[in-house]
Amino acid sequence: MTLMKSARTSQTPEIEEVAKKEGIDPDRLRKLISTGRVVIPQNPKHSPKPIGIGESLIIKVNANLGSSPDHVDINEELEKAKVSVEYGSDTIMDLSTGGDIDLIRRRILKEINVPLGTVPIYQAGLLAAKKGSLIDMTEDDMFNGIEKHAKDGVDFMTVHCGVTMEGARLIRDSGRKVGVVSRGGSWLVSWILHNGMENPLYSNFDYLLEMAKEYEFTISLGDGLRPGCIADATDAPQLQELIVLGELVKRARKADVQTMVEGPGHVPLNQIEANVRIEKTVCDGAPFYVLGPLPTDIAAGFDHLAGAIGGALAGYYGADFLCYVTPAEHISLPTIDDVKQGVIGTKIAAHVADLARGKDWERDLKMAEARKSLDWDEMFKYVFDPKMAKEKRKKSKPKLEDTCSMCGDVCAIRLANELVR
Amino acid sequence: MTLMKSARTSQTPEIEEVAKKEGIDPDRLRKLISTGRVVIPQNPKHSPKPIGIGESLIIKVNANLGSSPDHVDINEELEKAKVSVEYGSDTIMDLSTGGDIDLIRRRILKEINVPLGTVPIYQAGLLAAKKGSLIDMTEDDMFNGIEKHAKDGVDFMTVHCGVTMEGARLIRDSGRKVGVVSRGGSWLVSWILHNGMENPLYSNFDYLLEMAKEYEFTISLGDGLRPGCIADATDAPQLQELIVLGELVKRARKADVQTMVEGPGHVPLNQIEANVRIEKTVCDGAPFYVLGPLPTDIAAGFDHLAGAIGGALAGYYGADFLCYVTPAEHISLPTIDDVKQGVIGTKIAAHVADLARGKDWERDLKMAEARKSLDWDEMFKYVFDPKMAKEKRKKSKPKLEDTCSMCGDVCAIRLANELVR
Repeated sequence: MTLMKSARTSQTPEIEEVAKKEGIDPDRLRKLISTGRVVIPQNPKHSPKPIGIGESLIIKVNANLGSSPDHVDINEELEKAKVSVEYGSDTIMDLSTGGDIDLIRRRILKEINVPLGTVPIYQAGLLAAKKGSLIDMTEDDMFNGIEKHAKDGVDFMTVHCGVTMEGARLIRDSGRKVGVVSRGGSWLVSWILHNGMENPLYSNFDYLLEMAKEYEFTISLGDGLRPGCIADATDAPQLQELIVLGELVKRARKADVQTMVEGPGHVPLNQIEANVRIEKTVCDGAPFYVLGPLPTDIAAGFDHLAGAIGGALAGYYGADFLCYVTPAEHISLPTIDDVKQGVIGTKIAAHVADLARGKDWERDLKMAEARKSLDWDEMFKYVFDPKMAKEKRKKSKPKLEDTCSMCGDVCAIRLANELVR
Repeated sequence: MTLMKSARTSQTPEIEEVAKKEGIDPDRLRKLISTGRVVIPQNPKHSPKPIGIGESLIIKVNANLGSSPDHVDINEELEKAKVSVEYGSDTIMDLSTGGDIDLIRRRILKEINVPLGTVPIYQAGLLAAKKGSLIDMTEDDMFNGIEKHAKDGVDFMTVHCGVTMEGARLIRDSGRKVGVVSRGGSWLVSWILHNGMENPLYSNFDYLLEMAKEYEFTISLGDGLRPGCIADATDAPQLQELIVLGELVKRARKADVQTMVEGPGHVPLNQIEANVRIEKTVCDGAPFYVLGPLPTDIAAGFDHLAGAIGGALAGYYGADFLCYVTPAEHISLPTIDDVKQGVIGTKIAAHVADLARGKDWERDLKMAEARKSLDWDEMFKYVFDPKMAKEKRKKSKPKLEDTCSMCGDVCAIRLANELVR
């Protein structure tokens, strides 16, 4: 029995644990899970600590990592996973496409106890590429990849079930500026157009649901047709795919399978609210997992900052789960430091959104108190990277211990503490 | 005759130059300046290149720099000014409070040709502190400081004219968490409460206007009572000061003096729209110059990123001028690299807001084209720090020259270019 099915009739320990952590009523959370508005991705073969994603909960953050055909170093990927968790990432996705990807996935599953997500079509595509070409991928390759990941204990999987023949046609005829930038999406559009056949992940969605039930993994419906630049945002192919995803969400819920929906991508700031609202209507409140969004195309090198702008706004309007963006986005595979910067930037964005929705004020209130009393040790307890902040202060030491080198003895707070009573 | 007065009857070369740069009708810009909705801060003694700030224009960015009592290095401050301009800061403010602040200001005025702003009350306060205590500052000290800066050629000055006895009383009785965090604001509140007298910058505002007319500097009405934490945001003292500023804006316009209004500060994301809207109503569309805003209190070390989130949203809702925040905010005086990071982060925020208001799309469209054609040299033309982005790519070289090390030969765009036609 899946968690979603159990939740329909009775309370479970995972739900109670999440409810406690989130400070919400366990029975309310149970109902949110039973109706598909919250998911707890947890494959029994992995059994990570339970994390709730969705309506009424604190916004969660995901960090992507993994090898590429150009760069394979399993220890580096493990280190990225550890750094991500250390700086507060709630989940990890292993997107490896280079080297022994089975080994990398299994090592991460063994060593990391937050929910792990993958994109199993990479497995299928790489297998097909080895035999000749990506577009010779068979239906069996696709489902075998998924089953392999499920058996390994992957907690949630991105599956691009919403990329259909109709979507591929729309893409071909759309005059999009940057076409398709999702790897899975690009592979499937190419596959559909080349083979003249429907996407098996769509036509055999029921088979996927059977597997998800059997192995108890959460489905994350990928946005294979997401825009690759702000000029392509919120266009017909993107919306057509979203409508398909909305239908699939309903089918998944009928089958008691936990499901999230992925979203863009590149979206100008004035379209972010609309993107969240329509996901919530079309997909009936399914948890919304956004990639960024990036509200400009020209921030390469600083895309973690651009992504934080977009992510904070998306979260404020109701996105539930923010996929990080690192400073390496659009340039290269991220380094360990890029991963750290990406996690922290996205955590700040999520926190800003939570605050704006009236949640998670405690740390900020304590920081305000510490600032008022010029208590530096206390201040460093609440920042995202205490070590870095302390070093920064140390390098520019103030003459008066209770001030900082910005204002020294003309510190506004210090003077006000003395004179304004 | 001030620029504002000239603009009422005839076109001027500065206005024409700004209109051309902004791509708007010169006569429309002339009207916006004559009604005080746009300012061009330009002291004839400095004559920097004209920059328009306000309604219908591209959002501008300011970088603060200057010595502190704890750290004085004139060459470092000059270098900060140069780096700021190099990375796109439209104006500079010299907030020096340490060492020979006259010398620092004059050197910057000599070497930098963007508008320079200062906060002359620092001059008055430091003089008084030398003689005994900040709160012994006299009215003459205050106005003499302003005149000295005006004579030196300062283009715009922050003057905390809206901090009144009533504001000081509200602060004292407000139970604010962090009291006053503006230096000028804190000094004046202390001064008012200690001396039991009205703020001379308020009671003798007409004298200030005479000076502004004579020397032709733009007044930036400081927000001395801005909140110092998100819990204090949009409270009574802040709004009381804003109402006073609205009245002063009207008096300044009657005297033909260009005027901006400064705004917070620490503001949760859900209050940013309201903050911009009320400034625009209460101050009748005067250019709004925001400091951040920071939508969380706990991002020290990453406040440039938090400020970019707040600044982008403020700009989208109508803020005209964003004061940068650096990664050193709340920790120390910024280093040269902090200044660079602050400028770039704020430029990204301003650009994100401009895009969302339908402006400045060209670079993003060209970037989208370059990405589609995998033209890396072209891509690097549009980023905010091309040198850094190129080095990042070089350090993680892809095997195939047209891809990057993120996806290598399984690049989504590359495959789509081949197969989706």
